[in-house]
Amino acid sequence: MPKKGSAEERDLVHKLWDRNFAAMRAPASGGATKRPLPDVVAGNGQIYLAIEVKTTIKDKLYIDSPQIDALMEFCEIFGASPYLGVKFKYTKWLFLPPDKIERTKKNNYKVEKNYALEHGFEIDEITGLDKQVKF
Amino acid sequence: MPKKGSAEERDLVHKLWDRNFAAMRAPASGGATKRPLPDVVAGNGQIYLAIEVKTTIKDKLYIDSPQIDALMEFCEIFGASPYLGVKFKYTKWLFLPPDKIERTKKNNYKVEKNYALEHGFEIDEITGLDKQVKF
Repeated sequence: MPKKGSAEERDLVHKLWDRNFAAMRAPASGGATKRPLPDVVAGNGQIYLAIEVKTTIKDKLYIDSPQIDALMEFCEIFGASPYLGVKFKYTKWLFLPPDKIERTKKNNYKVEKNYALEHGFEIDEITGLDKQVKF
Repeated sequence: MPKKGSAEERDLVHKLWDRNFAAMRAPASGGATKRPLPDVVAGNGQIYLAIEVKTTIKDKLYIDSPQIDALMEFCEIFGASPYLGVKFKYTKWLFLPPDKIERTKKNNYKVEKNYALEHGFEIDEITGLDKQVKF
């Protein structure tokens, strides 16, 4: 399992504040409430983001489908755009909406580094600073 | 100083989820980031709330003005309505927008139980379930 590094979450939160978003990490004990909480929630008055964060030193990571389901459920209720925020070694932060994440045969999710580099959004794109959109 | 009870925060978060809001508490270490974080952020796709929580067994509580300033700053950036959520012994949760909170001579904020009972919004009001508005 990739580690949910809170140092990386803090780095992402700082980058969001730097882009004039107010951003907040979920509490460490968030899981205890049985609520589908994302790792980071952010907003700038126009765009609301909920981000599940995964980082790895490998070239590939896997996410169990209930985690992505929870992210989408939170976003549906809260009113936010769901993103998986991935950070591979030597890459920038890259963001994938759930429907752009590849599935495994068991219907879980997987992200390969090269796929993320090609298909992922950069932070300036999901924060609306850069309007370029990849298809 | 009134205690920032996380049990009370959890209670409030549950009540928000019960009203079809997705709600998240701030991380306990939130202060370490030097960012102006509220205790609770919630949204339902139309209404976004940021709430500073104070509970007390006394009949009056005080809030230093930097805490309310931080709440307002967060809301301004995030795009949310700021509320002080107060819970006195034997009262329901009551919510006051910053401009309805009384000030002390030193320009801090104070809330007396009877004032909150008269002027505070109830949770069904701030979540839009009850359109009644007090002036």
